[in-house]
Amino acid sequence: MFAGLADDGRPSPRPVPPQPRRHAIAGNAAEPGRTVLSRAFAVLDSFLSGRPEQTHGEITRATGLAPATVHRLLAELTGWGALERTGRGRYRIGLRLWQLGAQAPGGRELRDVALPYLQDLLQVTHEVVHLVVLDGDRALYLEKLEAHPDVVVTSRVGLRLPLHAAGPGKVLLAHAPPDCLEKILAGGLERRASGTITDPARLRQVLAEIRLQGFCISRNEMTEGASSVAAPVRGPADQVVAAISVVVPSSTPNLSPLVPVVRMAALGVTRALQG
Amino acid sequence: MFAGLADDGRPSPRPVPPQPRRHAIAGNAAEPGRTVLSRAFAVLDSFLSGRPEQTHGEITRATGLAPATVHRLLAELTGWGALERTGRGRYRIGLRLWQLGAQAPGGRELRDVALPYLQDLLQVTHEVVHLVVLDGDRALYLEKLEAHPDVVVTSRVGLRLPLHAAGPGKVLLAHAPPDCLEKILAGGLERRASGTITDPARLRQVLAEIRLQGFCISRNEMTEGASSVAAPVRGPADQVVAAISVVVPSSTPNLSPLVPVVRMAALGVTRALQG
Repeated sequence: MFAGLADDGRPSPRPVPPQPRRHAIAGNAAEPGRTVLSRAFAVLDSFLSGRPEQTHGEITRATGLAPATVHRLLAELTGWGALERTGRGRYRIGLRLWQLGAQAPGGRELRDVALPYLQDLLQVTHEVVHLVVLDGDRALYLEKLEAHPDVVVTSRVGLRLPLHAAGPGKVLLAHAPPDCLEKILAGGLERRASGTITDPARLRQVLAEIRLQGFCISRNEMTEGASSVAAPVRGPADQVVAAISVVVPSSTPNLSPLVPVVRMAALGVTRALQG
Repeated sequence: MFAGLADDGRPSPRPVPPQPRRHAIAGNAAEPGRTVLSRAFAVLDSFLSGRPEQTHGEITRATGLAPATVHRLLAELTGWGALERTGRGRYRIGLRLWQLGAQAPGGRELRDVALPYLQDLLQVTHEVVHLVVLDGDRALYLEKLEAHPDVVVTSRVGLRLPLHAAGPGKVLLAHAPPDCLEKILAGGLERRASGTITDPARLRQVLAEIRLQGFCISRNEMTEGASSVAAPVRGPADQVVAAISVVVPSSTPNLSPLVPVVRMAALGVTRALQG
């Protein structure tokens, strides 16, 4: 659904092509096939492209909508609180969307249950801790805790990153429906750092190992200099619903001692979800 | 903007009356004065009334919209990911709104900056820690951390609670524009527990003390059996932007020892925001 949006903060090709909507409420002669709601969604989606603040002109270019349409949509979205105007003639996502989003059971319940275990993991490792879920063909970062880490990572809460290029993503991919892997392979395995797996056969082999071992060690896959240990979290029906990871500097010679604590945290969340 | 919605989980009178919209994009003969977007907003708002999952019928009653209109809106909102269908013919807020909301700088930046200090506070107190901001005439709970607390509180992330009936709310109210207090007094000071301040003169006196002392001790105001210490967080221009609180059981005889640690945490976040 978000194809075409490089929502990891990288430059993305613009304008984003209009997406056909399946459910039309009202047409518009100037922009056929796009409903009022789909145009509002396009405006909101444009804020996911690593641009937390945008001007009217930037939103117009990002969405491909008519300037007058964008003007009216911005007025309505700001009036409701979905967007806020900053003092510099720019718009940003408002607290009303934050508040609505905080009600999403898919994210909130899992995050609330997992948080104490993530805090324990942070306490023990003093680096960066992630909670990640599968979102279409991307890894969505639900939570990130850090305590004066030695490692610099590009992740942040709400970011969607490629599944093949990081530990938690590979854990999720290892347990995803087969067509998810095929779709990702068809799109090509983009290199992000020196250790990114770009060979399909190698990726299949690594995913099989993850299923066998129950954890994943990654080095320099998403970010040069960052390595991680990740493990799966399972839900009530024992299906994998999330992955937990700890990121440390790649200068760490041996990552094996981290495996038990990451698995302990993932098992703790699993037990809490199944209890 | 959310007047009429009891978004703290309590039963609210339904249906919510239609809100007039200032910026009309498209009218509808059957529902004059409501735009397509305002109807979509009403559908989303209905999920804030303490009902994280709703059926088509419940949403129709909550919004006062025509069933066919709700049906079309649900299809579009679900198609985009704002809502998700559960297996029981019910709808809930989807991950797409969570992801968008996580981009709200007003919430995210403050929360990210504050989180390490909140974690330290939790580590020291082992009870419930809150980060709260002013949202219109309510206290919006941005973050909640807890570690096997002895106290039971009704707060949760994303909840909006009355300003007068809890420590962090009173801290925010003490530093809010004067018309905010007058509006709340005009609406009446609802009693929530045995210690709730319901006398306007007494509330004015307590707010003056908070401005003088720089913290707030509350007992049995929002929830019977829960007491708190709260302190203000200031932003770059030294304005109060949030409040931090620790909640403990009311059986705790002396809350004074908690004051320095709560103030330390609030000052730490203040320094980080001003740095």
